[in-house]
Amino acid sequence: MKQSVRAFAPATVANAISGFDVLGFALEKPGDIVTCSVSNRGGIRIAPLKHPYDKLPTDPTLNTAGVAVQALLDAHQLQVGLDLVIDKGVPIVGGMGSSASSAVAAVVAVKELLELPGSNIDLLPFVLESERVATGVPHADNAAPSLMGGFSLVRSVDPLDIITIDMPKTFACALVHPHMQIRTRDAREILPQQISMKSATRQMGHISGFITGMFTGDLALISRSLVDELAEPHRSKLIPGYAEVKAAALEKGALGCGISGSGPSMFALCATEEIARSARVAMQSAFQKVNLESDGYLSGISKLGAHVVE
Amino acid sequence: MKQSVRAFAPATVANAISGFDVLGFALEKPGDIVTCSVSNRGGIRIAPLKHPYDKLPTDPTLNTAGVAVQALLDAHQLQVGLDLVIDKGVPIVGGMGSSASSAVAAVVAVKELLELPGSNIDLLPFVLESERVATGVPHADNAAPSLMGGFSLVRSVDPLDIITIDMPKTFACALVHPHMQIRTRDAREILPQQISMKSATRQMGHISGFITGMFTGDLALISRSLVDELAEPHRSKLIPGYAEVKAAALEKGALGCGISGSGPSMFALCATEEIARSARVAMQSAFQKVNLESDGYLSGISKLGAHVVE
Repeated sequence: MKQSVRAFAPATVANAISGFDVLGFALEKPGDIVTCSVSNRGGIRIAPLKHPYDKLPTDPTLNTAGVAVQALLDAHQLQVGLDLVIDKGVPIVGGMGSSASSAVAAVVAVKELLELPGSNIDLLPFVLESERVATGVPHADNAAPSLMGGFSLVRSVDPLDIITIDMPKTFACALVHPHMQIRTRDAREILPQQISMKSATRQMGHISGFITGMFTGDLALISRSLVDELAEPHRSKLIPGYAEVKAAALEKGALGCGISGSGPSMFALCATEEIARSARVAMQSAFQKVNLESDGYLSGISKLGAHVVE
Repeated sequence: MKQSVRAFAPATVANAISGFDVLGFALEKPGDIVTCSVSNRGGIRIAPLKHPYDKLPTDPTLNTAGVAVQALLDAHQLQVGLDLVIDKGVPIVGGMGSSASSAVAAVVAVKELLELPGSNIDLLPFVLESERVATGVPHADNAAPSLMGGFSLVRSVDPLDIITIDMPKTFACALVHPHMQIRTRDAREILPQQISMKSATRQMGHISGFITGMFTGDLALISRSLVDELAEPHRSKLIPGYAEVKAAALEKGALGCGISGSGPSMFALCATEEIARSARVAMQSAFQKVNLESDGYLSGISKLGAHVVE
């Protein structure tokens, strides 16, 4: 048996415009790397994280990586001491699936280390357990794509039913993280609990059009289906310059632009990396006009999902 | 120019379980046949219909075929006398898209007769105009599949955006029309105007799973995605024996079973005609147990949609 395994898990974009709460996709980068080693001392220990992540808890019952690993061990009735070192690359509280990435990398590393059977998707329930700790809600649209790569449809949470959606190969994503915070809980609370039947059926049309476009490679259909009538009208109010940032991305040829997860990051899904590159620049400029500094990311869509490294 | 053209338009199943208000499909049969002839007397005239359809209006401003044809003529700024003979095969007030079938057959015949440009889908706005007369609501999930065949997704009504969804080739449908009536308006009024965000996102998962299954040919995914959380919980109360009829169809191996349109017809979508045949028998038996006589139909899914005949 190996003494130590490192695994990478990518950042993810949940609520991917048309698919509030049911659709997410994985970036190639950034991502978290978790190194897991067997320890003789028993229990799960998490090493203190480096700046700027040093405020994340190292108590394994509070850190998503610790919670997910404990759930995995419990499911296999294993009692083994594990040391986790979390090398975070995904900004926290950014809407990039940061809590899921750590948990995903951790369970993928532990699975390899302890030679547990099954594939990545079998790890999803343990990551969801940790998402409950992080956000109070066991949503799967970050965890599933981080585990599996590509676009994940959460057809059902109970029972868990995750479907991978085909996608045109050249897709790329511009993601811009403005220097401000929105708490996931606040972003949830701004949403209405009830919506009109008409909004619901219109949104069903949008996600259906998006998925059809993904399977048929119809970029125009994908683009006009990237509409969010559920979350965007409310959450966009929390992000200064939202309309201008979105318009800037679309003007550069992005297929669609919206809020990543619960924000404040915004992303633009683009047919090519070239378009994504200019969209990123335009989006950052638009944020600057409302005096918001930002970090910009440019990435392909992860085809692999989380995986062991080295 | 021809003096007379006959066109056939198939019955349709709207609200196809996962896709309330946005998904419908066309049967191969039954259907309506409309014969359209040029008349020197000016205006649109509709011949009296045969029993049991003799209560349908012959006033062209009240009959869906007349309304649709008038809208088509208006759009082309044509003033021409037309005689319409409607040979109905689709039961009225059955949830089989009867009003759309007549309108679709009529405009397809008139288009051919007057050698108007464009394809079937270009006729949709005129049929929608007639649907407004019939139901008060311009829904497109009967009219679009009747015009185009196969499964139609109504991505958007305004602007009109209709997408054809691929399907496995062997699909068949059992449709059972119990001898009772539900008015379309009543079926609409029993639905809540507001639904929970959670129901909406779950239903988005269902329709997305269904469409993915259609493109990938994953019958198990199609089957478990044929879930309706929006209309079925309410409308099923209007149909005696609903749960038993559905269970009977599923027990015979149907992929899914639900209300056709606004009911009272129920349909079972099946992977093969053989399964559909036994589902139909079982569904009719179940209706008999609650003392409802019924008409049963068995059909493939129309690949052609409405078309000129002879």
